[in-house]
Amino acid sequence: MPTKTVINAAGRSVPLEINGQPVVPYKGVGKHKPEGRKYSPPIPTCSDYPEDGNKVVNSLEEALRKCGIGDGMTISTHHHLRDGDLVSNKVFELASAMGVKDLIWFPSASFPCNDPVINYLDNGTINRIEGSMNGPLGRYVSEGRMKGTAVLRSHGGRVQAIQDGEVRIDIAVLAAPTADSFGNAKGTGGTSACGVLGYAKADYMYASKVVVVTDNLVDLPCVPMEIEGNYVDYVVVVDKIGIPEKIVSGTTQITKSPDRLLIAELTASFLEKSGILKDGVTIQAGAGGTSLAIAVFVHEILKNKRWKSKFGFGGSTKYMVKMLEEGQMGFILDAQAFDLDSVKSIENNPNHVPYPVFNAYNYHSKGNLTSLMDIMILGATEVDLNFNGNVVTHSDGYLLHGIGGWQNCLHARNVILPIPLFRDRIPVIVDEVTTLCGPGELIDVIITERGIAINPLRQDLIESVKGSGLPIKTIKELKDEAEKICGIPEKPQFEDEIVAAVKWVDGTVIDVVRKIKVR
Amino acid sequence: MPTKTVINAAGRSVPLEINGQPVVPYKGVGKHKPEGRKYSPPIPTCSDYPEDGNKVVNSLEEALRKCGIGDGMTISTHHHLRDGDLVSNKVFELASAMGVKDLIWFPSASFPCNDPVINYLDNGTINRIEGSMNGPLGRYVSEGRMKGTAVLRSHGGRVQAIQDGEVRIDIAVLAAPTADSFGNAKGTGGTSACGVLGYAKADYMYASKVVVVTDNLVDLPCVPMEIEGNYVDYVVVVDKIGIPEKIVSGTTQITKSPDRLLIAELTASFLEKSGILKDGVTIQAGAGGTSLAIAVFVHEILKNKRWKSKFGFGGSTKYMVKMLEEGQMGFILDAQAFDLDSVKSIENNPNHVPYPVFNAYNYHSKGNLTSLMDIMILGATEVDLNFNGNVVTHSDGYLLHGIGGWQNCLHARNVILPIPLFRDRIPVIVDEVTTLCGPGELIDVIITERGIAINPLRQDLIESVKGSGLPIKTIKELKDEAEKICGIPEKPQFEDEIVAAVKWVDGTVIDVVRKIKVR
Repeated sequence: MPTKTVINAAGRSVPLEINGQPVVPYKGVGKHKPEGRKYSPPIPTCSDYPEDGNKVVNSLEEALRKCGIGDGMTISTHHHLRDGDLVSNKVFELASAMGVKDLIWFPSASFPCNDPVINYLDNGTINRIEGSMNGPLGRYVSEGRMKGTAVLRSHGGRVQAIQDGEVRIDIAVLAAPTADSFGNAKGTGGTSACGVLGYAKADYMYASKVVVVTDNLVDLPCVPMEIEGNYVDYVVVVDKIGIPEKIVSGTTQITKSPDRLLIAELTASFLEKSGILKDGVTIQAGAGGTSLAIAVFVHEILKNKRWKSKFGFGGSTKYMVKMLEEGQMGFILDAQAFDLDSVKSIENNPNHVPYPVFNAYNYHSKGNLTSLMDIMILGATEVDLNFNGNVVTHSDGYLLHGIGGWQNCLHARNVILPIPLFRDRIPVIVDEVTTLCGPGELIDVIITERGIAINPLRQDLIESVKGSGLPIKTIKELKDEAEKICGIPEKPQFEDEIVAAVKWVDGTVIDVVRKIKVR
Repeated sequence: MPTKTVINAAGRSVPLEINGQPVVPYKGVGKHKPEGRKYSPPIPTCSDYPEDGNKVVNSLEEALRKCGIGDGMTISTHHHLRDGDLVSNKVFELASAMGVKDLIWFPSASFPCNDPVINYLDNGTINRIEGSMNGPLGRYVSEGRMKGTAVLRSHGGRVQAIQDGEVRIDIAVLAAPTADSFGNAKGTGGTSACGVLGYAKADYMYASKVVVVTDNLVDLPCVPMEIEGNYVDYVVVVDKIGIPEKIVSGTTQITKSPDRLLIAELTASFLEKSGILKDGVTIQAGAGGTSLAIAVFVHEILKNKRWKSKFGFGGSTKYMVKMLEEGQMGFILDAQAFDLDSVKSIENNPNHVPYPVFNAYNYHSKGNLTSLMDIMILGATEVDLNFNGNVVTHSDGYLLHGIGGWQNCLHARNVILPIPLFRDRIPVIVDEVTTLCGPGELIDVIITERGIAINPLRQDLIESVKGSGLPIKTIKELKDEAEKICGIPEKPQFEDEIVAAVKWVDGTVIDVVRKIKVR
């Protein structure tokens, strides 16, 4: 079915309707003013819930039946159990067995362990996934095999969509490492601890029905109540919600690549020399190998200068925990824990505080945490000459990566992308990004192993490192250098069919992903 | 204007409309099934808020102007600063100076310090108060002097009304002992600490505009974030939000009256002999002198038996804190702190946890904390032969008391009213309560200095204390005994005019208060 498209404010051709629903084309950063009111779920009454507060039912199947699972419903899950998640797939296995069709899966992220849901996409149980898709799931979408159109949102865009009623969750199925029979739940404790449940808040607040699935039922009250029991309908106790070693996966290893280490060192040096790194600085970095190395270098500088970061926003890692515990960081505000050290820290350190993405990243709230961050370290699959960034499509044009919190984080004061100049001999800097995920005006600095490019919009930063000896270049120079080494690779080719829409943080459509043309 | 009334399920004559809005007559406990959806405030956008997160404005007046204060708006405040509150009156002083008319004041409670708002009722700045009214404010209402009709709600009924959109808050002005410039705030710290801010949650979540007023501005992040900054529009810093000695007023003194002590002893004895008091028991009591004495006696029993209460729900007092610290209570879940020991405990004890009334008492949620409480100690101004209770009108017929959480607490497993048989030679047990606040089917036991009456609906309790030696009597016997001593006082007389409506926990109208007939 041909879709009517328009050119949005970023110059991208986007549809006016996705999955039968009208959508708003991207209008520019901060330009879309939402009208109307937040979404309002049905009013429940205590008289429909057990007086003794015991909401435990016998099985997930029973819970789904009691929730009235039916064709076309939207089912949400969170990704805190990461690649060890044993709950999400089970929902669709059960739905499939019940003969339910055309569900919308609305995860906060998906992982390789979720690849089996392809079976339920194939057999019609699931119509589409609205959420990040990595690896095989993304490939499935890129090949045009998913019935509905995928909708990709940032973590903040996801909670904005829930709050504003763009996505109406019928049933939220929320895995919880610890819960009580009333449905209060948290991310610590038990054998499947993941630290915090920062991605579950909008789901339980706005879903019509909420199911908590736990393998560690404790006496009421389960504190802290990251999930508040008075929003919960049913509690299911299972043997295992996750595979512990895959929940906190130990992938948070500092890079050993000499090139990546060089990038990390250059980044730390840039932060220091530009004056961005200072006493009281606020920091957010990721859990990739380069980011971790940057954290270690930054920690050294803070220690040497006797400076202290006011707070860091997690995804937390052991390197942030080290800063906190050694006195170079005041607080960790945390939406998800990446490793065991972080999980332990949340349990023990009063200044390591759960901070849901609903509060940190929701652009349709009265302020975001991200715009308060001095240092924001991010990645990208591609950056173009206008500093536009792509994080979802791979160099081969396939939809292989999720947005995560990337778009939300672009609102930080200094957005820095430490990225290699090329990956597998394919240059990362291109004329124009395949998929536009973030507008260049929000991306300040690109740091590669062969030089640093500062966005011309940031003359203050360009001034700040004059005479610093740092290898400052234009982004064009960096691109040319990469192409001199690698050549210019052939561009991926696409069909007209739109297989995924990419939303901006305000719910507007910034770009689409089209079906890959198989050559 | 004559109001159309009907007889509700409790046999009370109630109007079908209050202040021009249709209302639903009370249908019986658990009988009203809400339809429709929760209230949805307007969708905000980060692009309208300062990027640096600094929402501090110069004055409360500026904040109110920026919020667009105007005629007929609803202004909410909380009562955590109790009789030391310096913020609520200021709002109306400013509104009056601005010439704003017909505001609705929607406090979570009022105190003697709020009596000056009578000036703003008199001069038309305030149309009516929807909330508890004590002393002079109540007398003002009873005399028919308030322009609009008062609406009395329980703490839980108040948050239900907010959530369901029966009351739509235009501006919530929330005093906070500690806050950061983003609007994150808490009840501890500074010179005006009140412990927790358990009454502010529904207000900040559902109000169109939210102003935080503090006298202790701290660096971001203010943790714990009892008020979440991403719901806050403006922050105002003032010299003093409250008078410390009146905030935690030290009124939490154990009774010295021999009669009241006897009632407390009898209550503890009843709890023990009936088997209600047991290992793992859940307890809620108030901060009145008799309740505190009961807490001390109960603590002794727990200690002697080596039992532990699973948790207590606050209003917290030093006697609960003592149980917690000495190991006879697992957790204190707390919506408000009554004394300095409690404030300190919240700051220091990880098992003393803020627990908003929005989560504990909202009958239109998926379960209440109150129905999980084994022991609920409450008061009443009158109880009648059917165990119906009145907590708002005084024996002279004047509206002199607030409902507080009383109606919500009636949902506990064992609701016990330790009350004197008479006050100022006026019997407390009457043929029929002047104002029906809680239906008798929810009130289990009346304990007086001259005997204990158990509701015949609770045959299990009657059985449990057979042969215990406790002075068990019928409620009729207690009433007769009181009347033998005091005589039967003349009944207060009322005009037809309705001056206040009393809502049940589900938003229906259970009774009204009529204008007093001055003789």
